[in-house]
Amino acid sequence: MTPRVHRLTVQYDGTPFAGWQRQRDPNTVQGHLERALAQCWGRPLPLAGSGRTDAGVHADAQVATFTAPAKFKSLAALQAALNYHLPPQIRVTRATYAAAAFHARFSATGKEYRYRIYNHPCHNPFELHRAWHLPRPLTVTAMRRAARLFVGEHDFASFTSNPGYARKTTVRRVTRVTISVRGPVMELRFRGNGFLYRMVRNLVGALVKVGQSRLTISELQTILNAKTRSVAPNTAPACGLYLRRVFYRNRK
Amino acid sequence: MTPRVHRLTVQYDGTPFAGWQRQRDPNTVQGHLERALAQCWGRPLPLAGSGRTDAGVHADAQVATFTAPAKFKSLAALQAALNYHLPPQIRVTRATYAAAAFHARFSATGKEYRYRIYNHPCHNPFELHRAWHLPRPLTVTAMRRAARLFVGEHDFASFTSNPGYARKTTVRRVTRVTISVRGPVMELRFRGNGFLYRMVRNLVGALVKVGQSRLTISELQTILNAKTRSVAPNTAPACGLYLRRVFYRNRK
Repeated sequence: MTPRVHRLTVQYDGTPFAGWQRQRDPNTVQGHLERALAQCWGRPLPLAGSGRTDAGVHADAQVATFTAPAKFKSLAALQAALNYHLPPQIRVTRATYAAAAFHARFSATGKEYRYRIYNHPCHNPFELHRAWHLPRPLTVTAMRRAARLFVGEHDFASFTSNPGYARKTTVRRVTRVTISVRGPVMELRFRGNGFLYRMVRNLVGALVKVGQSRLTISELQTILNAKTRSVAPNTAPACGLYLRRVFYRNRK
Repeated sequence: MTPRVHRLTVQYDGTPFAGWQRQRDPNTVQGHLERALAQCWGRPLPLAGSGRTDAGVHADAQVATFTAPAKFKSLAALQAALNYHLPPQIRVTRATYAAAAFHARFSATGKEYRYRIYNHPCHNPFELHRAWHLPRPLTVTAMRRAARLFVGEHDFASFTSNPGYARKTTVRRVTRVTISVRGPVMELRFRGNGFLYRMVRNLVGALVKVGQSRLTISELQTILNAKTRSVAPNTAPACGLYLRRVFYRNRK
């Protein structure tokens, strides 16, 4: 049996997990998936994700790959077997074969994140751990204007919590930022060719300060130009962030 | 200070609680609310809910009343104080004064419940404990036709898990049943002048059997006519049920 590249789409509620990445704490999303793979194949199989997510961060559609000989009658049977072994907060929503050269991380050409804010004086129990609760009204028009600053190719050094993580450069191209409001739920979407460590949460933190009239757009421009984290506003909490989509060439 | 009737609207995620009603287990919604009231007033204050909800059942807007002299500068301050003392899965979303004769349970003229089903082969981690997961497709047209049987005044003895709970009669008037489908989420809404113990979950259990082609509409009619629980299908799980609204005369 020749080994094949398996591609998984994974949805998870990040609340109970210590983030994506395998580590000493066994309670990570990657750790649970690798244990499920080991249960199915009877030996350890390393799994590669499109990227890490922090503790408490969610995923609508994380992508992960591993290489192994086909083991089940069908990909549907593989998916069912993995879900059987996984905790219910993690679901494999799709399993396909990919080209031999395909890799969840190295083949990725871009990502989309969404960030949910619950903007109402009283929090909603059903939004607990699913959105950032901000009791006072935000000025969405100002936030939308500010968000335009981020679109395009910029050095986002001011918006990463650890510039050392960015191996070569802190320059990234953000292709789209949209902010939608539906009742008390505000959702910010960020699309780009890549995001630095904690970049989305730092961008959200800055946009929220603008929405609270505690930061002007020209001050935000100064922060972006400064290229140093020390001047930037706070990081938004993990619970509002969702990895929504990973993009690949040829939609593969 | 003359005592006043306080009316609270309460939203809760029922997952972590042993139901509404105060009991030996201190972890009930009523128990948490009464402890919060005791914290605020410095003495025990009994709280009356519009009715009980079982362990795991949620509420969009449960209504509860208690009588006490005004204690805070404003009702907003009372609401904030109660929410400060409550677990985050329980929120007081509104606090008002009511007429002296108003009582959350005895003044209620009707209720609306909603029941959520996640109808998709793969469950959604964000719907865990929030919907009943049914992997195989349901025939919604058949369910809608069957639901019409319940509308009107009927003896629902076949659909209560404990007829002894109904003090006088097991006759209830159901005024509306609607079933909406939005992607994989099916929501059933039941409005009526009152519901017997576990009645909504038993009605849902029966409608689902119809949607699965495991029960015909004429068989369902026979079950309704039989007026005995022993012939009725299974109770739907608690996690899908939400007390959506309590109705009072004069909207008070």
